[in-house]
Amino acid sequence: MRAEIIAIGSELLTPFRLDTNSLFLTSELNKFGLRVTHKSVVGDTPEEMRSSFGQALERADVVVTSGGLGPTDDDRTRETVAQMLGRKLYRDEGVFQKIQERFRRFGRAMPEINARQAMVIEGATILPNPKGTAPGLWIEARGHVLILLPGVPQELRGIFENEVQPRLARLGIKQRLYTRELRITGIFESDVEERVSPLYPQYPDVEVTILAAPTGIQLHPRLWSEDAAKAEAQLDELVKRMSLVLGEYLVSTRSESLEEVVARVLTERRATIAVAESCTGGLLAERLTSLPGSSAYFVGGVVCYSNELKTSLVGVPAELIEAKGAVSPEVALALAEGIRRRTGASLGVGVTGIAGPTGGTPEKPVGLVHIGIADERGPRASEFRLPGDRERIRQFSTQRALDMVRRYFLFPA
Amino acid sequence: MRAEIIAIGSELLTPFRLDTNSLFLTSELNKFGLRVTHKSVVGDTPEEMRSSFGQALERADVVVTSGGLGPTDDDRTRETVAQMLGRKLYRDEGVFQKIQERFRRFGRAMPEINARQAMVIEGATILPNPKGTAPGLWIEARGHVLILLPGVPQELRGIFENEVQPRLARLGIKQRLYTRELRITGIFESDVEERVSPLYPQYPDVEVTILAAPTGIQLHPRLWSEDAAKAEAQLDELVKRMSLVLGEYLVSTRSESLEEVVARVLTERRATIAVAESCTGGLLAERLTSLPGSSAYFVGGVVCYSNELKTSLVGVPAELIEAKGAVSPEVALALAEGIRRRTGASLGVGVTGIAGPTGGTPEKPVGLVHIGIADERGPRASEFRLPGDRERIRQFSTQRALDMVRRYFLFPA
Repeated sequence: MRAEIIAIGSELLTPFRLDTNSLFLTSELNKFGLRVTHKSVVGDTPEEMRSSFGQALERADVVVTSGGLGPTDDDRTRETVAQMLGRKLYRDEGVFQKIQERFRRFGRAMPEINARQAMVIEGATILPNPKGTAPGLWIEARGHVLILLPGVPQELRGIFENEVQPRLARLGIKQRLYTRELRITGIFESDVEERVSPLYPQYPDVEVTILAAPTGIQLHPRLWSEDAAKAEAQLDELVKRMSLVLGEYLVSTRSESLEEVVARVLTERRATIAVAESCTGGLLAERLTSLPGSSAYFVGGVVCYSNELKTSLVGVPAELIEAKGAVSPEVALALAEGIRRRTGASLGVGVTGIAGPTGGTPEKPVGLVHIGIADERGPRASEFRLPGDRERIRQFSTQRALDMVRRYFLFPA
Repeated sequence: MRAEIIAIGSELLTPFRLDTNSLFLTSELNKFGLRVTHKSVVGDTPEEMRSSFGQALERADVVVTSGGLGPTDDDRTRETVAQMLGRKLYRDEGVFQKIQERFRRFGRAMPEINARQAMVIEGATILPNPKGTAPGLWIEARGHVLILLPGVPQELRGIFENEVQPRLARLGIKQRLYTRELRITGIFESDVEERVSPLYPQYPDVEVTILAAPTGIQLHPRLWSEDAAKAEAQLDELVKRMSLVLGEYLVSTRSESLEEVVARVLTERRATIAVAESCTGGLLAERLTSLPGSSAYFVGGVVCYSNELKTSLVGVPAELIEAKGAVSPEVALALAEGIRRRTGASLGVGVTGIAGPTGGTPEKPVGLVHIGIADERGPRASEFRLPGDRERIRQFSTQRALDMVRRYFLFPA
């Protein structure tokens, strides 16, 4: 079964905004057995909308629209669809009262224009909106289903989860999409492909999407099947074989981010961590504290941009910086060791490097980063030469640092 | 004149990827007088492509496609367009040699499949690709222009800037889009609208798009006009009047981010800054160091998650934390004062708050944040109650802290 998604709104045709709702909708429609074969963005003029809606209804079994259900003159989805289907619009008193109540709850009188949002297309099923005023509409016409949803993401999600999901389930589509997600880090995208692609011929029905970012690589095996048990077994087997060839580069097969895996192992081992970072400017601490509950393992950090602070706050000897340079394995070791000692954390991490765009030399180019990690037995350091601009080098550096922490626990040398 | 954008590729119909090229293309097309009236994403099957291309060519003067020009069997844009227009495909020897040379330059033999990328549609103008193998194609047909570009963003941009821009300029479209950008912070989106919307009736031809994020609000006034001087003057006047009503909430009328404005004033005043942050976990230091050259004003920072570190690294008296609590104006002041003293920066900033989701109490709820700022005359603090989840609270907190630094210099109390 085929689905199409249409986002409505002139602001989505500017250089400033993308239709991000379609990612959520695609994931949801796939779960219920609908392949998304076309997505579009149209302005809010009735001609544009009529042309796009009409074509979509011809091609697809289910069409989902987002946007154009607001209270203003620019919100013309309801009128346009009614006209296109030759149906009447009427004011639904139940919806009207709910909108009035909603305004009353917030201590306001309902502005007159909001009455428009109580207009409903003849024969449509009203999908109550738990987070806003405009309800969604479920319309069956010409053997197809047309689902109108508001464009505000949390309203769209609320209606989808409460009202659309159970109705899609009742369509009884046997073929469903089954998926897995593997997260990988510390290896190039091309190397991941080289390792996993020899497995593909044995799984001809599985499509694998690969995504690469400074925060790691994701593999998404996806399989359309009518047989849940068989599909799950096949994906489990493929994931197991992928895991074997990916080895210690595999971060998770359960959609966990590297931050989550590091948080989990630190918590399991009852370890604590502190960081002293230079070129990453706070990003490593930020990533370590991005998860709720991080105070259980994260003690603190120092962003020592100047050499003086490396000495005064972390205790790196000034002579060492003088002799070896701030970007050196020795200083990375001293940062890791120093922050561990000064904070009492069980693990210290030190990062020093050249994020650029300036500051590089032939011997120490932009992208050179040293990362140290210290425990009670002493420190060790690794050197990296990272590609990209300032932002990417900072992202890659923190990725490597977090991965060193992961490996410290899971693959001790 | 109307333009449509079509992105081709089955991975763009998964829940993982958006067609971000269309933002760049929209901005560029607008500059040359083309309004984008429709965007779509289609899979790589010829039927899908034919249906979308055909409709777009009927509706729009210019159609730009991205993707489907690669070397594999899935890359069918060339074949499909040739067939649709009833034109032949031929191998262009010039293109073929360039592809071979490119592989030679990287020390590789050209794989046979890449020969496909030298296939060209009869009558098309070849648009050389400075960053990849597949050239773009400029095709005039049925009174319309069809521009085929590769999907890799840097290749698409390279071809667009070198080859498409001058050709669009030669279309001689008189009406162009003129734009401005205002950045605002420290005020709600609805308050921005309340202040600026009374100006709209006097500028009926100007469309204003408003974007809100934790990193501030953007206003984009846009005006289509055939008279450049008149349009620029009108926008200048509107920006001046918007600036007046926005007052000190206005960060920039020159597309500068808050980080850039803060960097500029710190540099101009020859001031230096250091930060001690708790709930923001390093994000404030990260934002202050995100720009090249930040070592000129950023001395360093401490992420003092634990109370012990607030005392040992920043010198906040343990008794003060005991008496007032870690999240208190007094501790924010002591953090600002302490980090200033310990680092020798001219300005110290301290942030303490509750980012959640846990840790809130009725008196000190999630979202309560105290920010202190200290100079040689002593510290002062402000209290904020910020909305949203952990990530938003951290973002908003750093936004408020950076804005306090901006106001410290530009609007001294």
